[in-house]
Amino acid sequence: MSDDQRTTEQTAGAEKPKYKVRITDTTLRDGSHAIRHQYTKENVTDVARALDEAGVPVIEVTHGDGLAGSSFNYGFSGTNEMDLISAAKDVVKNAKIAALMLPGLGTVHEMKEARERGIDIIRLATHCTEADVSIQHFTEARKMGLETVGFLMLSHMTTPEDLAKQGRIMVDAGCQCVYVVDSAGALILEDVSDRVTALKQELGDEAQVGYHGHQNLSFGVANSVLAVRAGADQIDGSLCAMGAGAGNSPTEVLVAAFDRVGIETGIDPKKILSASDDVMRPIIPRLPIMERSSIVQGKAGVYNSFLFHAERAAERYGVPAYEILEEVGRRRYVGGQEDMIIDVAVAMANKAKEPSAS
Amino acid sequence: MSDDQRTTEQTAGAEKPKYKVRITDTTLRDGSHAIRHQYTKENVTDVARALDEAGVPVIEVTHGDGLAGSSFNYGFSGTNEMDLISAAKDVVKNAKIAALMLPGLGTVHEMKEARERGIDIIRLATHCTEADVSIQHFTEARKMGLETVGFLMLSHMTTPEDLAKQGRIMVDAGCQCVYVVDSAGALILEDVSDRVTALKQELGDEAQVGYHGHQNLSFGVANSVLAVRAGADQIDGSLCAMGAGAGNSPTEVLVAAFDRVGIETGIDPKKILSASDDVMRPIIPRLPIMERSSIVQGKAGVYNSFLFHAERAAERYGVPAYEILEEVGRRRYVGGQEDMIIDVAVAMANKAKEPSAS
Repeated sequence: MSDDQRTTEQTAGAEKPKYKVRITDTTLRDGSHAIRHQYTKENVTDVARALDEAGVPVIEVTHGDGLAGSSFNYGFSGTNEMDLISAAKDVVKNAKIAALMLPGLGTVHEMKEARERGIDIIRLATHCTEADVSIQHFTEARKMGLETVGFLMLSHMTTPEDLAKQGRIMVDAGCQCVYVVDSAGALILEDVSDRVTALKQELGDEAQVGYHGHQNLSFGVANSVLAVRAGADQIDGSLCAMGAGAGNSPTEVLVAAFDRVGIETGIDPKKILSASDDVMRPIIPRLPIMERSSIVQGKAGVYNSFLFHAERAAERYGVPAYEILEEVGRRRYVGGQEDMIIDVAVAMANKAKEPSAS
Repeated sequence: MSDDQRTTEQTAGAEKPKYKVRITDTTLRDGSHAIRHQYTKENVTDVARALDEAGVPVIEVTHGDGLAGSSFNYGFSGTNEMDLISAAKDVVKNAKIAALMLPGLGTVHEMKEARERGIDIIRLATHCTEADVSIQHFTEARKMGLETVGFLMLSHMTTPEDLAKQGRIMVDAGCQCVYVVDSAGALILEDVSDRVTALKQELGDEAQVGYHGHQNLSFGVANSVLAVRAGADQIDGSLCAMGAGAGNSPTEVLVAAFDRVGIETGIDPKKILSASDDVMRPIIPRLPIMERSSIVQGKAGVYNSFLFHAERAAERYGVPAYEILEEVGRRRYVGGQEDMIIDVAVAMANKAKEPSAS
């Protein structure tokens, strides 16, 4: 081989930056699912500091299911999330702190307390067809001076056109950025760009558009590139993919891939790799990965937060978790129906006990 | 929420099959890197049987660096690869067995022995600009009655047009399918479809086109979908992503994602999940993942097989593996230059020892 051949100009990924995007890291919120909501104040301090030093502009800190998520139904937090928000706020120099809230589970009361603890941004999450339940909360959030984001969960369950209408409801109520949230990791390529495009067309300059991906079928990062090219202004990631199900788009991979295709994040590529490998990975008891249950979730479009619920039910009733998730997918359960996972497992266990007709 | 809303027709991923593709599973070849070439006959028997029962049409079995790869330079195999080929051949009922060979490292002699042991397909791999070194081997392979595949490695290092010319050289020599091989996991979306399209245009009906992906930047599966849409006939995967660097596109995820977007593989989705989770995962000492070194490989376009070499050099000379890989990327080293990784590490260690000019 000649030296000339070896120095052939590399052509892949050689474009110049054309896009800018704001990354929100959700390690300390969606990632809370992957650690069963047991983050300590020390964890939060270490991770938030590392993210801030790497230049991550927004850090989300909350129970995985949002403010007031700590409960029998969703799983109790190891540490009060308000204290975790304070811990993050105390340590960051530049990053904004965000909190997630599912209206109904969390109330204006928790939003106020989180504001006092130092959040700058509230992300209000509803099922993709139920934006109307967030109207009052957006109004209140804006009165408090919070920046607002609307989170349309399980976005694969509705069409781009209908999603855009739901986004319109949020924006009319005071939402400043509507996210396409792929809570099941079920969206593939144009599924995402079609939804982002529809939202951009509906919202124009009135609000931004975001994308929150999951890795169940390994499309989180690729979908994020297409989302940005379709006009998305904000993208979610998490260190080491920490998140529900197979995890989120890894922030450190988003930064590397975006850099390669010319999408500016303002994040230092080396420092974000240090945040993931030196700070986050040692904390993680079990990495979120693509395995049977999480792949089934992506394929069947099942809410990723259901994974641990299904695993617990599987253990208790002796039915495989992935079969529970398949049935949950057939029944099209959505966030808030966690208790019905038990019913599914019980029914499957009873059916298995029935004598066969021989 | 009303029941009507919950049963809103799911629109994402609802298309009907439009494409068919042949999957080659390379768990027992590229995956050999991830287990430092220590597969046992029992491992191979178990994995090949599970793949065959799931309907995987082609199973590749060889040292990670191909026939005769077992050596001081590339790492010694725990078991003679010819015995592993026999073990796989003995257990499969329908699958074809493939072997990889890098002409120069392996010779016609090894190809003949592998043929006697039962391979149906030989995959001849060269650097993406050096197809000419495979001409004689394709001729000999066809004389032996082997099906032939050409593997253009580190395809990101040349343009789609030049890659097509290299494919032409292989096909004129007897190659029946030319693969775009993303040995560094550096190709992103249209980087792949542009290369597949160029090869299809050059080769027409004379030969098929394939794509072999890696997960360094998490694009293996997404790139595979785009490769098929651009006309690729063959796609590589491996169970649990077992492969060099951050691993390959996971076969079980390819099957799930392809099913969702209407690409037929003929593989049973449940059985392939059982193959990955029940058979393969318990064998794996260390899952290939996206971490600092493998992400740097994807970003800097570094041959994935270099990962363990860099890790060994890092340990010996006290220089971080990812920094060695970054330097290797700057020097544009390609497969066959494994020994020079040591030189890089030594130079970096010596530089670190120099007194600073103070």
